[in-house]
Amino acid sequence: MSKKLSLICFSGDFDKAVATFTLASGAAAVGYDVHIFFTFWGYNTIKKVKGRSAQGTGFLAKCFNFLMGGFNNLPLSRLNFGGISPKLMTYMMKKNNVATLEELIDASVALGVQFYACEMSMVIMGTSLNDFVHVKETLGVARFLELAEGGQVLFI
Amino acid sequence: MSKKLSLICFSGDFDKAVATFTLASGAAAVGYDVHIFFTFWGYNTIKKVKGRSAQGTGFLAKCFNFLMGGFNNLPLSRLNFGGISPKLMTYMMKKNNVATLEELIDASVALGVQFYACEMSMVIMGTSLNDFVHVKETLGVARFLELAEGGQVLFI
Amino acid sequence: MSKKLSLICFSGDFDKAVATFTLASGAAAVGYDVHIFFTFWGYNTIKKVKGRSAQGTGFLAKCFNFLMGGFNNLPLSRLNFGGISPKLMTYMMKKNNVATLEELIDASVALGVQFYACEMSMVIMGTSLNDFVHVKETLGVARFLELAEGGQVLFI
Repeated sequence: MSKKLSLICFSGDFDKAVATFTLASGAAAVGYDVHIFFTFWGYNTIKKVKGRSAQGTGFLAKCFNFLMGGFNNLPLSRLNFGGISPKLMTYMMKKNNVATLEELIDASVALGVQFYACEMSMVIMGTSLNDFVHVKETLGVARFLELAEGGQVLFI
Repeated sequence: MSKKLSLICFSGDFDKAVATFTLASGAAAVGYDVHIFFTFWGYNTIKKVKGRSAQGTGFLAKCFNFLMGGFNNLPLSRLNFGGISPKLMTYMMKKNNVATLEELIDASVALGVQFYACEMSMVIMGTSLNDFVHVKETLGVARFLELAEGGQVLFI
Repeated sequence: MSKKLSLICFSGDFDKAVATFTLASGAAAVGYDVHIFFTFWGYNTIKKVKGRSAQGTGFLAKCFNFLMGGFNNLPLSRLNFGGISPKLMTYMMKKNNVATLEELIDASVALGVQFYACEMSMVIMGTSLNDFVHVKETLGVARFLELAEGGQVLFI
C-alpha cells in the first residue's frame, strides 16, 4: 500500500476544516501524497472571496453562495453562536501556539498537498475554477477513485 | 487491493445522500464492486413510503419514524429552511442537467450497487426489510467488515 | 492487508458515538486490531466527569467544556429536542435488548480496543489525560497514520 491520503472535504464547518488541514499537512510532512477533494459546503474553505458574496450564475446559485458565506463565515458544527465561536476558537489556537486554520492551509499548500474541485458541485452552484484558490483541476468520481486508489480515504 | 467501495450511509441528509449515490453510481460505472450499508438516519433515503409515516413497532419507534420523515423529507445538513432548500437544489440540479437524487439511486441500482441494512438500527426503530426498497440483506458489523475487506470504506 | 480498523471519533453526537462503538466492539470481536482516535467533540464520550463541568485551563476553554457537556449530555445529531431524544433512544435500546452506549464502550474496552487522544485538541481545550477514561496515549497526525497504516480508516 502506497503512502497516500485522500480527503473528501464535504463539510464547510470550521472545526471539520481544521481536522481536514491538520490531517493533510501532518501527513504531507511525513511523506504522504495528499489529495483533497472539495465538494459542496467544503468549497467555502477555498473561496477566493473570503467574505460573503453572491457568486455563481443563476439567481438561486447566487442566493446559496451568499448564504453559505466564504472562508470568514465557516460555522462551527455545534455551539456556533452566530459565528462567534470560530473566532474564539481561532483566538484560543493562537494563544496556545497551535496553528490557525489559515496557517494549516498555507502549510498544506507549501508541503505539496493537491487540491481538486468536484465538477458536479461546481455545475450546480454555478461557480468556476476562478472562484477558488489553490485548486489544480476539477474532476468526477472516476478520476477521484483513480487518484485515491491504494491509499487511505476519509469523508469529512 | 480489489476495486471495491463500501459506503456507510449513516446520515439522512439530502446533500450527503447525493454524495453517497454520486460516489456509488460513479464507482460502479468504472467497474467497482459497490456496497452501501444503510443505518440510522440513512434509512430515510430508501424507505418504501416516501412521505411521513408512523412505521415501526412501539410508540416511540412510530414517533421517531414519523419525525424523521421519508425520502421526500430529507433535510439539507445546513440552510435547510424547513425543507425548502432540498427542493430548490433538486430544481437547480434539473436545470443544469445534473442527475437528481432519485436518478442517482436508480442509476446505482441499475449498475449493480448492493444495498444492505443494519440489523441493530432496524431492531431499535422497529422496522423490517419490508419497509425498504432495493435492500438485499440485513447484517451486523462482522459481515460488513467481511464485505468491505480489501477495499475503500467511507462513513458518510 | 492486516485486519485493522482505525476510527477517528470527531463528533460528540450520541448517535455517531453509538456507531463508533458498535463498529469498534464488533470488529474487535472478530479479531480486528481496533484503534479509536478521539478528537474535538469526540472527547465528550470519554470524559471522566459525565455531567457538565468547567474543565480545562483558561476562561474560554472552561466555557467550551461546560457548554459541550460530558457523557450525559451527548446530543442526537438531529431531532435532539433539548437532550430528551438520546434518553428515549437509550430506553428503546434497552427495551429491544440492544446494548446501550455505555455497554458498547465497556465491551470495546474489554475486547482490547485502544483509545487515543489528539494532542492538538487537548492543547486548545486545555484538558489533560487525567480528564479522560481508558485513554492510553496522546498523539499527533504522524503517529496516527503509523498506527492506521494498512487498515481501514473511518472519520465519524
